[in-house]
Amino acid sequence: MEVLITGGAGLLGARLARQLLERGTLADAQGKQTPISRITLLDVVPAQGFTDERIKIVTGDIADPKTIESVISPATQSIFHFAAIVSGHAEADFDLGMRINFDATRLILERARHNGNRPRVVFTSSVAVFGGDLPAKVPDTQVLTPQSSYGAQKVMGELLVTDYSRKGFIDGRALRMPTVCVRPGAPNKAASSFASGIIREPLNGVEAVCPVAPETPMWLLSPRYAINSLIHGHDIDGSAFGYSRALSLPGLATTVQEMVAALERVAGSNVVKRIRWERDDAIIKIVNSWPGNFDTKRGDAMGFKRDADFDSIVRAYVEDELKGQIAA
Amino acid sequence: MEVLITGGAGLLGARLARQLLERGTLADAQGKQTPISRITLLDVVPAQGFTDERIKIVTGDIADPKTIESVISPATQSIFHFAAIVSGHAEADFDLGMRINFDATRLILERARHNGNRPRVVFTSSVAVFGGDLPAKVPDTQVLTPQSSYGAQKVMGELLVTDYSRKGFIDGRALRMPTVCVRPGAPNKAASSFASGIIREPLNGVEAVCPVAPETPMWLLSPRYAINSLIHGHDIDGSAFGYSRALSLPGLATTVQEMVAALERVAGSNVVKRIRWERDDAIIKIVNSWPGNFDTKRGDAMGFKRDADFDSIVRAYVEDELKGQIAA
Repeated sequence: MEVLITGGAGLLGARLARQLLERGTLADAQGKQTPISRITLLDVVPAQGFTDERIKIVTGDIADPKTIESVISPATQSIFHFAAIVSGHAEADFDLGMRINFDATRLILERARHNGNRPRVVFTSSVAVFGGDLPAKVPDTQVLTPQSSYGAQKVMGELLVTDYSRKGFIDGRALRMPTVCVRPGAPNKAASSFASGIIREPLNGVEAVCPVAPETPMWLLSPRYAINSLIHGHDIDGSAFGYSRALSLPGLATTVQEMVAALERVAGSNVVKRIRWERDDAIIKIVNSWPGNFDTKRGDAMGFKRDADFDSIVRAYVEDELKGQIAA
Repeated sequence: MEVLITGGAGLLGARLARQLLERGTLADAQGKQTPISRITLLDVVPAQGFTDERIKIVTGDIADPKTIESVISPATQSIFHFAAIVSGHAEADFDLGMRINFDATRLILERARHNGNRPRVVFTSSVAVFGGDLPAKVPDTQVLTPQSSYGAQKVMGELLVTDYSRKGFIDGRALRMPTVCVRPGAPNKAASSFASGIIREPLNGVEAVCPVAPETPMWLLSPRYAINSLIHGHDIDGSAFGYSRALSLPGLATTVQEMVAALERVAGSNVVKRIRWERDDAIIKIVNSWPGNFDTKRGDAMGFKRDADFDSIVRAYVEDELKGQIAA
């Protein structure tokens, strides 16, 4: 079977590709584990570090129908659609957000529909679909009143994925990702960037700034569990989703304080001293608008797993990215 | 000020136009009642029966950017966007539903945005946004899991109206209409057509078929109250909507049995004998998927009004459409 990953050069896309190469199979349309013959990684920049001959690297504009036609054929049985304009960027450039987060999603679903092979489509949504008046613990039945263009565009994508699935055009799943932490690599412009930075930088011997209060609640998933959730979300039977193909993934509810305490337990007090606490009101405002905790009964019942605690998230980062070596 | 009504040849569009001509004013961008100089009625067929020189009748394809450019100018301060492909039709023709219910809505909002005058936009949504597992009485906080393409397209329209308003591009309001009853004129293909038919036909001396059980719950608004709600929804300050510009309008919760009992009280037992009870499983299935009752605290607090009882709805129909004359 052939697989497409959009955003294939990003953290989730590239990591998913590596895991699929190792694993070798995915559920086909009938739910049978089937060997993967091809993984196409589409992004605006070429995905790096792949030598496996099953990998095909494509660069292009995801909102251009020609690009989509070139990467989705009737042989494409699985589509992981991760490419997106992030929250802050979509808020600053409304048209670009609509084009990439909504129009490109629709193009992909239309192309899949017209191929007639009803591929499985995993669309990454976001907890940014929630906004406005929220309870401390957001239930699966929370009404969606997003307060950002990114959030609105993600809800619209969820609705398309659900309706295209209900009509039998595709077999879709829209998974709302917790903040993925610890992200390897450099900080980015996302307001959540600090969540990885305050762990990653100190472990690499670099100072990090924490712009929010210690008691700030966080809703997290490690890269390992994020990838496992995406594969599980792909492989389970679509009927498990019921009336909506959108699902809030189980995550780990913690606080910045607990994260730092876990870092100290795993790496020692010298490492933790590399965190400088320096409040940034702009970031605090955005982060405080996010729900910090969710009741994910539905996802739990569907077999999605979350990290046990933040200590194991720190340890997984040290194993996966630092080969076990912490900067003393 | 200039007003655009899409679906201007339909029941709500034409009736709203007549009421606006009589009333003479609407709230402008600053909330000040301002004389209406022009009402453009856009539809696929020409609106009938208007002689007032403030009325401009335009026919065209609402999903064609040229049509939209021709009817929305920087002088257009109010847009009532009613044009839609109805539920059954949008389910049978997915592409047409997306084109008219979603793409045309987006075109209108984009045109308004680029004019830069932040017009008030009243978008008619529907209780079809609700579906799946619903409580007997649907609250304002009900999560939306539409089970029809029409419902999904209406939710997407609501999200655009809310996000365009949040961004300051327009000042929008998305009002979820109860079933409008008693509709004058001929039966149509809507599954809800019987709700008007079982009242209208007997009052006109014609036999009507009731395809659903007497105990079927119904959520209704008379044309009078529907129009008043649309005008109120236009004129109130947008900030009253809070985090979402979408609102379930207050309606009258009743049953088919109570409707027929009211008809008998107003028009007598001979009229009621013209109803033939003949179950239609296809219609029963659709109608039973609709919520029959809503808790509309939010709309009530915002000053929206509903009919007091079904007797007054029957009387209003007899006054407005039959000049007080019931077929004996």
